[in-house]
Amino acid sequence: MNTSALRFAAGNGLLDRRSFLKSGYGLSIATAIGLSPAGRLLADSEPPMPTWMTSLGAADSAYGSPSPHESQVLRQLQPNTPQTAGFSIWHSPLQHQRGIITPSGLHFAVHHNGVPAIEPERHRLLIHGLVERPLQFDLQRLMRYPMVSRIQFLECAGNTAANALSPSALDGDCQALFGQISCSEWTGVPLSHLLREAGVKASARWVICEGADGGSHSRSLPLAKLMDDAIVAFYQNGERLRPSQGYPVRLFVPGWEGNVSIKWLHRLEVSDQPAFSKDESGLYTRILSNDDILAFGFAMDVKSVITHPSGRQRLPELKGFYEISGLAWSGTGRIAKVEVSADNGRSWTQAQLHGPVLDKALTRFSIPWQWTGAATTLLSRASDEQGHVQPTRSEWRSRYAAHSFNHYNAIQAWRVGRDGTVENSYA
Amino acid sequence: MNTSALRFAAGNGLLDRRSFLKSGYGLSIATAIGLSPAGRLLADSEPPMPTWMTSLGAADSAYGSPSPHESQVLRQLQPNTPQTAGFSIWHSPLQHQRGIITPSGLHFAVHHNGVPAIEPERHRLLIHGLVERPLQFDLQRLMRYPMVSRIQFLECAGNTAANALSPSALDGDCQALFGQISCSEWTGVPLSHLLREAGVKASARWVICEGADGGSHSRSLPLAKLMDDAIVAFYQNGERLRPSQGYPVRLFVPGWEGNVSIKWLHRLEVSDQPAFSKDESGLYTRILSNDDILAFGFAMDVKSVITHPSGRQRLPELKGFYEISGLAWSGTGRIAKVEVSADNGRSWTQAQLHGPVLDKALTRFSIPWQWTGAATTLLSRASDEQGHVQPTRSEWRSRYAAHSFNHYNAIQAWRVGRDGTVENSYA
Repeated sequence: MNTSALRFAAGNGLLDRRSFLKSGYGLSIATAIGLSPAGRLLADSEPPMPTWMTSLGAADSAYGSPSPHESQVLRQLQPNTPQTAGFSIWHSPLQHQRGIITPSGLHFAVHHNGVPAIEPERHRLLIHGLVERPLQFDLQRLMRYPMVSRIQFLECAGNTAANALSPSALDGDCQALFGQISCSEWTGVPLSHLLREAGVKASARWVICEGADGGSHSRSLPLAKLMDDAIVAFYQNGERLRPSQGYPVRLFVPGWEGNVSIKWLHRLEVSDQPAFSKDESGLYTRILSNDDILAFGFAMDVKSVITHPSGRQRLPELKGFYEISGLAWSGTGRIAKVEVSADNGRSWTQAQLHGPVLDKALTRFSIPWQWTGAATTLLSRASDEQGHVQPTRSEWRSRYAAHSFNHYNAIQAWRVGRDGTVENSYA
Repeated sequence: MNTSALRFAAGNGLLDRRSFLKSGYGLSIATAIGLSPAGRLLADSEPPMPTWMTSLGAADSAYGSPSPHESQVLRQLQPNTPQTAGFSIWHSPLQHQRGIITPSGLHFAVHHNGVPAIEPERHRLLIHGLVERPLQFDLQRLMRYPMVSRIQFLECAGNTAANALSPSALDGDCQALFGQISCSEWTGVPLSHLLREAGVKASARWVICEGADGGSHSRSLPLAKLMDDAIVAFYQNGERLRPSQGYPVRLFVPGWEGNVSIKWLHRLEVSDQPAFSKDESGLYTRILSNDDILAFGFAMDVKSVITHPSGRQRLPELKGFYEISGLAWSGTGRIAKVEVSADNGRSWTQAQLHGPVLDKALTRFSIPWQWTGAATTLLSRASDEQGHVQPTRSEWRSRYAAHSFNHYNAIQAWRVGRDGTVENSYA
């Protein structure tokens, strides 16, 4: 690569994207080959013709599946966490994904009571409590209301807990450390339609939302948010919800911690106060550094992670061009910018945001990087349209008690070694 | 429903969306139930507690799949078309989908030579012909170039051929008649990066693009389009391409007929003229009404279809509220508007477009409808930002010879009977 033609945007090889686009990409990544004058490959560069190019291919099937060569791309159970038949945490393989859509088969999941096998024709949604007309819906009737679709993320409150809790940076890949974040197109009926039909009474402030799983997972949510943008969702990425995601119907509450988007939704009790259920009094709270408990703090904070390169990946050549690519998101709006540093924070420059940049959705960012081959640390720092910016790890830690881990959103550091290895780091 | 509070936007019950939003949705769809003063369901309305609400659920799996209750939602082979081991046409179940994303397992597919089982580590992409430096890439090197992602549709040139060819409207559902249209997030390297690295000579005008399937499906494409927005795609909806969609690498040419987005891409020959290969001289041409042949007409035309309600569906109640919902798309830009008629074209009103409205992507539209119960015909008519408007069937037919069927994009009519049945119609 003719590096003299490049303009650098920040230290240690981060490139100015426009000069890079103009440079004609002399990346020296491809292999130049010899061809005969007629354009045929010369014998010494011609690989044997593979059988698939000389024979009829296989039949297709009525429901497609990934290539057997990608069989390692799977959800993985969270490491170092005791999991039972009822409670399990499945992580998405972020380091194998590109773009912003998570295929439904790879969407992260946290189950409190296993996955119930619901017969859809027997399932009911009940709205009662402080309403003029208690209502009950079967699915056929519920799905006749007008629907909306939105591409939005879902993140578990406890995503990246290992980096919040562990005194030293644990070895792990992006999936193990960050895999409780996914993004899909969700389609359903605005909950406001149903609550208006039931007639919410003036004293109502909260709605207790309960699932049909064996443990009746439930959360109390402010009525105002549910009237604003929550939906009763039937579809994910164009097809009906998977059982693991709440089939036949779930609540979807944009931007808020995942467990409040109640799966297998069957009951909405309108109330003037929260229920203080098990999960909202314990697991899904935060403990501040003065030991005060912060409950009912729902919105996920602005956050980002570089997915390429990321933990346990290995750069295949020990210097030269790489594209740095990652994901950013915020529970309080659109991503406004993502800054990247290739010198452990001494200098920063803005990455490109790939559109569409949507409200409360994953946003893909990237920046070209000419690696010198020296060991270094890569960082990304996202800001949202409300002005929220990711804190450093020490800033985040100073706000919370040592054993508090929910809503961890500090700047992530990946250490790149001279041997091309990439590992989790606290910078 | 208190219909006196509604404002109608066009004949036969099409509602003004804003007045509908304000009306409070007295849709009378839900069942009002009796509750005790403590809020408990009264015995006569209380269904037996299903076992899934009182027991631990099942374990989840590392790669999710749809509910067994949705096992009828599959791709289907095109009816009334001879299909062989090599040539097959699979249709997407549009009438079961919502939103704009097609899950990869349900994406339509047309195969000319079956699905090759390619070993990714042996696959190569060759760029040769009128270039300064012929180049060859393995996948590992190819995937180091900067990538982009876009949500865009793919439609077969022959989609809706039955309505083009059949003198009378054939009975069929939306999948059988319209199912060769899908929309995904595609991620890959802009082809312009690779062509610039190879150094395109000044005399170059075309690129002959060839797949690694046993029959070497190939098409000649104008260099200008490939430099503008074509990508070499590795990912669909966040995961690597399915074998049926070209694993490990395909060409993706936005807005153009599907067969030019060459699957299993292995060779790009830069040329000053087209190759006039079998498929571009025969199958994928159009015959005009004066018997002239239109070849190399690539962009798919503006088109729309109402998916709910659509062919062979049955409206569950014989009058009352329904949401009309459908899909619109154009190979030449964004959808500007979709007009809907509920009285066979006597009056029209604009449907709501659900955002994001993206370039060369499916766009979801909807409009609320208060059905009187009388037999009628529903129509949708899309316009794109270039000013293209869907023609009537007779306008479309007058432009082409009777046996020409590619690029059919006429206004679709669904006949709704008094018994709630919906069927294909020529209006």
